Amino acid sequence: MDKLYKTNEESWNSFQKDFRVSWGLEDVYIKPTSLTYIDGEKGELRYLGYGIQDIISANALAEEMQYAFINGELPSREELRHFVDVIEEGYDLPEHVIAAITSLPSSSDVVAMQASAMASLAAVSDFSWPQENKGDFFAKMLGQMSAITAVSIRHSVRQKPRLPSPGKAYAESFLEALLGKSPGDEKVRAMNNSLILYMDHEVPASTTAGIVTASTLADPYSAVLSALAALRGPLHGGATEVAMSQFLEISDPRSVDAWIQDNIITGKRRLMGFGHRVYKTYDPRALIFKSMAVKLASDKSNAKLLSIALRLEEAGSQALQKKGIYPNADFYSPIVFSCIGIPFVKGSYTAVFALSRLPGWLAHFNEYLSLGGRIIRPRAIYVGHNERRFKPISER
Amino acid sequence: MDKLYKTNEESWNSFQKDFRVSWGLEDVYIKPTSLTYIDGEKGELRYLGYGIQDIISANALAEEMQYAFINGELPSREELRHFVDVIEEGYDLPEHVIAAITSLPSSSDVVAMQASAMASLAAVSDFSWPQENKGDFFAKMLGQMSAITAVSIRHSVRQKPRLPSPGKAYAESFLEALLGKSPGDEKVRAMNNSLILYMDHEVPASTTAGIVTASTLADPYSAVLSALAALRGPLHGGATEVAMSQFLEISDPRSVDAWIQDNIITGKRRLMGFGHRVYKTYDPRALIFKSMAVKLASDKSNAKLLSIALRLEEAGSQALQKKGIYPNADFYSPIVFSCIGIPFVKGSYTAVFALSRLPGWLAHFNEYLSLGGRIIRPRAIYVGHNERRFKPISER
Repeated sequence: MDKLYKTNEESWNSFQKDFRVSWGLEDVYIKPTSLTYIDGEKGELRYLGYGIQDIISANALAEEMQYAFINGELPSREELRHFVDVIEEGYDLPEHVIAAITSLPSSSDVVAMQASAMASLAAVSDFSWPQENKGDFFAKMLGQMSAITAVSIRHSVRQKPRLPSPGKAYAESFLEALLGKSPGDEKVRAMNNSLILYMDHEVPASTTAGIVTASTLADPYSAVLSALAALRGPLHGGATEVAMSQFLEISDPRSVDAWIQDNIITGKRRLMGFGHRVYKTYDPRALIFKSMAVKLASDKSNAKLLSIALRLEEAGSQALQKKGIYPNADFYSPIVFSCIGIPFVKGSYTAVFALSRLPGWLAHFNEYLSLGGRIIRPRAIYVGHNERRFKPISER
Repeated sequence: MDKLYKTNEESWNSFQKDFRVSWGLEDVYIKPTSLTYIDGEKGELRYLGYGIQDIISANALAEEMQYAFINGELPSREELRHFVDVIEEGYDLPEHVIAAITSLPSSSDVVAMQASAMASLAAVSDFSWPQENKGDFFAKMLGQMSAITAVSIRHSVRQKPRLPSPGKAYAESFLEALLGKSPGDEKVRAMNNSLILYMDHEVPASTTAGIVTASTLADPYSAVLSALAALRGPLHGGATEVAMSQFLEISDPRSVDAWIQDNIITGKRRLMGFGHRVYKTYDPRALIFKSMAVKLASDKSNAKLLSIALRLEEAGSQALQKKGIYPNADFYSPIVFSCIGIPFVKGSYTAVFALSRLPGWLAHFNEYLSLGGRIIRPRAIYVGHNERRFKPISER
């Protein structure tokens, strides 16, 4: 135990004996859910009962799944039309939201830019739980988040704000705003599928931080703000970027074996993009990202990245196979993002992850409150000093 | 149970039988702590073993207690001098942080302005856990938060940014920046004591949201951002303002009894500023805030507010006494803030609360990570649909 905060021996001992801190809340059920089902042993992931591979194979649109998360069931054609109309209302960001992004240094972390924009939307929001037309409110937020993400990444590469335009699929209008033009059907499809693959994953730290905030009946922008802040942590949100940096550091497929030897076998570093707290086998999302990367990586630089990743998977699996550690969703996704043409700058891939995750966050907040979930207020167990007299500074 | 998200009868039933959701994490110990001890039965509150009344009676400076929270013990004179020097470095906010506030509409919620500013500091932060000189880093944040809060409240009443100046106590330089001049010793002392009284209260929702974010090893600005977002919820952060609005609505001490009869006895509304999840008797902070309010409320409008509050306490206690419900810390504090001269606009009193709470937040984040606390990832228990085939939209 760290000695920064002095403990009282007696209460520390009785605490050790009588209480159990749920470190990381690992064994705690924070809510029931009908959203996402994960079987880590079998490598299964389902959204509202639909297998992830099934959803991708059926060429589902991201906005169909966004609708399902937010409204509880897949939409009819008419429902989807209305949903998309409301998403598109969100594309037209207010000036002060754009300014919240562009007033930041362009070297800023992109997720922090998204957070600034969310704070500026929260600042003028009149949402209050229970809210009429929640579904429409959330749909509009999806549109706003697409615009925010495009403007933020553009700002980080010193490009003028450009907003998504209506009349196209969610993935396509995002990429058009971000890149200035549509990158073509194959890359739009990859973006669409990435949006789906990252849409929800039960209650990791970001979702949990957002649920805590939503539990105070804060507006959804504020709850999303909490979740975005949690994504800033290197243990959580930065995984795709760390995996990418690792590929760039290795820089040549022929260097993989030596790199593994020097860094992983010696235990000096961890292999990034490998292993998952939940999956004990191949993450089904990783398989899909891998096949997308293989399909898309045609130009020279991405083909090289892919060769590094493929060799790293092979060598890494060999090195770690006794531990049953496999590539996770964040191992091949950065290559997919790179193939799509998304600039790789500080926070940009995590920002795309956040864009994808927004419907999952909103659905969990909504579900928690719909089930009557109360304000979150855990306990801390006191192990500090007994009562003592305050000594004025003249006596210290 | 809300029917928005369809559940599977069978898994819902087995969930009801076999699992227990820790709603609100009410019975969950998220961490041990040596910071704050609360005895809700006896109405006792201690910081690092020092009774709250003892601290106030000894005329402690807010910065002494801030030091204690951040560094684990009260400072010597020399330690305090260095600490204050570093706080003062924080007063000089970078331009882009000021712009993050002033680019928002001045009608924005003040806490959201603080959040925008925090996001803009997070955007360029290079903090990473474990960090050398954490204590200095946190001290500088205290200076920044004072400046941010002053600039934000000023912006909300359309006044130009003004930063705190060095060479004065924390409470005084904050008020000088906010009000344009020092309001005099008595009000500075009241501000100082408010900063202490609200400095920590174990792990309510805002602190919890921040701990979740800190557990991902996010920088402290991001963790504070999560906490600020949680304060936006009407169940949590707005309590002082709701109590104030209640006094303003009643508007005359002679209307209190009729108002209680119409709203509280009938059960139509809840009496705000009364009752607390932890205290089963008089909150010791409420007693101190009350005596400060009584001492300070000399001008006509504040004297009237105080009369309303005093009569409301009497009538409210009578109406609710069987339930053992007493005024909480947020009942008299808005009158103290009003006497000090802090403008009452949307979020301004909550923003002052956040300023006061910052050392407690930082200390909890630091303590959680110092004790080796792992990333927070609770579980959700799946009660939804069994696996089903994805129906393409043409079939829906």
